[in-house]
Amino acid sequence: MKQKQSRSQGSRYYPKRYDFDEKSRNAILDEGLVCHVGFVLDGQPFMIPTGYCRLDNTLYLHGSVGSHFFMQLAKGVPVCVSVTHVDGLVLARSVFHHSMNYRSVVVFGRSRLVESKEERWLAAEKFTEHVIPGRWNEARKPTESDMKKTMFIAVPIEEASVKFRDGGVVDEPEDMELPVWAGVLPLKLQALEPEADETGRRDVEIPEYVRGYAR
Amino acid sequence: MKQKQSRSQGSRYYPKRYDFDEKSRNAILDEGLVCHVGFVLDGQPFMIPTGYCRLDNTLYLHGSVGSHFFMQLAKGVPVCVSVTHVDGLVLARSVFHHSMNYRSVVVFGRSRLVESKEERWLAAEKFTEHVIPGRWNEARKPTESDMKKTMFIAVPIEEASVKFRDGGVVDEPEDMELPVWAGVLPLKLQALEPEADETGRRDVEIPEYVRGYAR
Repeated sequence: MKQKQSRSQGSRYYPKRYDFDEKSRNAILDEGLVCHVGFVLDGQPFMIPTGYCRLDNTLYLHGSVGSHFFMQLAKGVPVCVSVTHVDGLVLARSVFHHSMNYRSVVVFGRSRLVESKEERWLAAEKFTEHVIPGRWNEARKPTESDMKKTMFIAVPIEEASVKFRDGGVVDEPEDMELPVWAGVLPLKLQALEPEADETGRRDVEIPEYVRGYAR
Repeated sequence: MKQKQSRSQGSRYYPKRYDFDEKSRNAILDEGLVCHVGFVLDGQPFMIPTGYCRLDNTLYLHGSVGSHFFMQLAKGVPVCVSVTHVDGLVLARSVFHHSMNYRSVVVFGRSRLVESKEERWLAAEKFTEHVIPGRWNEARKPTESDMKKTMFIAVPIEEASVKFRDGGVVDEPEDMELPVWAGVLPLKLQALEPEADETGRRDVEIPEYVRGYAR
């Protein structure tokens, strides 16, 4: 796999913002819940947010067999898939040096309809475990009829661009004594209290993989 | 403005997933920190995550004048901009009915280089206040030189597609008595403890708009 290089910033003002390590790429992809999938239709850019998972060097998407979007992807088209995490606001003394800490991957590849039964089941399991590890072996597994309603799309990662910013504030020397609070405000997607469904049986305890959920 | 209709799901299994209300559209756009911008280059889909803000019916992006991506947008090209919030995991008794609660907007428009000084300053202020209200009047404002390094791109919202899922679990009647915990695990992007920059003066208190930050 070729890792696409993002433009180096080179200046003392900017922390390192790219990484060619496949491990970084995978860590960002594996932490995300939703990706944005871009494709071209009649020369126009289209984009859709959707769930995904990664298996080795392939991303999997899934959707309803009736979805126009997924029917386009089933044709095998060039796509661009992006996953981004916002990690914090960088509050410099000057507006110009305000920034965000983030990690992002942009993947380029060609979509492929997943047709083999084995790969479809593998994707279904991986998808569930990507979102919430531990769930696949507990929830009622898909029936043949459930699977018939679901289309799986593979996107082999042909190229990937990994970009990030981390670290602290960078300000101009002449701004350092301004009476302006400067620092980083970290942001994180966090799980709140689980809300049990009360329409079914109520004697089932909240599993540890739900109670202790964190990305 | 035309609101693009997303496909109605129609079935009892799916909560309402679209909304034509401009207020919903704006609320989703105004809560987000990062958007994904899709465009077409030589017939290939490209995408980049970046900050943004909304002013009335226009999105504003900004970047370095040297950025290849922003130079493309400066030409005035069809773009697709998406903002998505993940609100929770919907854990049904069956794998098939697992879902996510989310809110998303996909905007279609044509990029435009912002050239007037007035609109550039308006965008700079709006951008800062979009990310962290209260900051513009406190931080050191951009100089002419700062502004020269920055390119502003406007994307008038020509069409917008608003989609969301909220609410609880929907399962098949025959699954309701399975001994599987079902419910919603809410997720939220939250601010953690601010980390002060210790390279400048240290007698500045953390402002309330930082301490009490929430999207």
